[in-house]
Amino acid sequence: MLPKSQLKLITSLAQKKYRNEHGLFIAEGFKNVTELMDSRIKLQQLYISNPVHATISKNHTLITDKELRKISQLKSPNDILGIFHVPDSRPIETNALVIALDDVRDPGNLGTIIRLCDWFGVKDLVCSRNTVDCYNPKVVQATMGSLSRVNISYIDLKEFLQNNEETSIIGTFMNGRNIYNEMLPTKGVIIMGNEAHGISNEIAEQVDNRIAIPRFGDNNVTESLNVAAATAIILSEFRRSSIEM
Amino acid sequence: MLPKSQLKLITSLAQKKYRNEHGLFIAEGFKNVTELMDSRIKLQQLYISNPVHATISKNHTLITDKELRKISQLKSPNDILGIFHVPDSRPIETNALVIALDDVRDPGNLGTIIRLCDWFGVKDLVCSRNTVDCYNPKVVQATMGSLSRVNISYIDLKEFLQNNEETSIIGTFMNGRNIYNEMLPTKGVIIMGNEAHGISNEIAEQVDNRIAIPRFGDNNVTESLNVAAATAIILSEFRRSSIEM
Repeated sequence: MLPKSQLKLITSLAQKKYRNEHGLFIAEGFKNVTELMDSRIKLQQLYISNPVHATISKNHTLITDKELRKISQLKSPNDILGIFHVPDSRPIETNALVIALDDVRDPGNLGTIIRLCDWFGVKDLVCSRNTVDCYNPKVVQATMGSLSRVNISYIDLKEFLQNNEETSIIGTFMNGRNIYNEMLPTKGVIIMGNEAHGISNEIAEQVDNRIAIPRFGDNNVTESLNVAAATAIILSEFRRSSIEM
Repeated sequence: MLPKSQLKLITSLAQKKYRNEHGLFIAEGFKNVTELMDSRIKLQQLYISNPVHATISKNHTLITDKELRKISQLKSPNDILGIFHVPDSRPIETNALVIALDDVRDPGNLGTIIRLCDWFGVKDLVCSRNTVDCYNPKVVQATMGSLSRVNISYIDLKEFLQNNEETSIIGTFMNGRNIYNEMLPTKGVIIMGNEAHGISNEIAEQVDNRIAIPRFGDNNVTESLNVAAATAIILSEFRRSSIEM
């Protein structure tokens, strides 16, 4: 049985305002929930509609499928939903490769970028304050568990870059230098811009190294790559080049 | 004024069944609509809620914002929506680089992959019959106009590969050979698998060249890359290697 007060609290966590107020977020599905539980992120309460999951945590409540559908943010709900405490960010390690997002807005893009950081061993993801919240249920879902393995910090991006002057700041621009021909550093901050507007002017000013992914189509119309696809290519190039060195 | 019969027809096009029945699909937003109009894809009717767009085509109907919201598939509707004829597929050119999708289901992933084909000059995208329909409104939206520049064919993938035995068939597998060290061909069919299950067994049997994108994270947990992110990295590697040759 799910008390009404609980139902109200859980559904409120779809909104950033209430996630911030309670310091809690939702994750759904066996893989997402168990990978978060295996990490430093702390479970507050587990809700399951299938008793087979009871062994996962003592801290569980068995509810009906109908109740689970009510608290789920998914079109096709699973049989397991966890409420987790939002973890504190750890200090950002700038003596390595860092990805910084300048107002990325699409939850699917952020989720894919978090997965990419995890795959390519990028430990720190830095987000401008207007970047979509990484505890948004759609982001959590798209990360497929990677959320627990990347340190994500929301900061004033301009200030962060100013405070890290000695660090190499890399940005992607249409008129940048061909990434395939560049000597890429093994550490530095790589900035990825907003879906519609790219990197903002005030951030662009701080970029030391402008790179570009060459276009191969025989048209001049294709305007840009999706930001998550561009991040995939850039991270692959940086890691490839670190092997060759 | 939008007659009820028109409203019903347009909203029905959100479903594949009715797109097939009528041979029509929806595109929204100035960029998407005008790029489709500049291509071989034929406009059936343009709906605009802002008279400024009247010059785009004689074949337009001025409707109210409220009417546009009713026929729009977007959360934040634009002021322009076009109904287009589904084009016939052209013959597949296998003497080049071709991407083949084995049951990719997510509209956002397919949209991103179409954009990637456009960017990297891949003219043919071949889709298994269970791959999400490229005229699904969410796919059309995610392509940002690229839909008009890639020839997309829905076929029996197994049969297609069997009929192209002389062509190199490349697939991504966890245990494949490191893509960074491989001599990559300038032509062939690159197969990308389903989001949850990867490449199916019957298709895997036909793969000549098994490649892998190396993982750099210091964990063995990260299971896979998002299929659109993996396509981005693979296409970048194939094109990069064609420059070096």
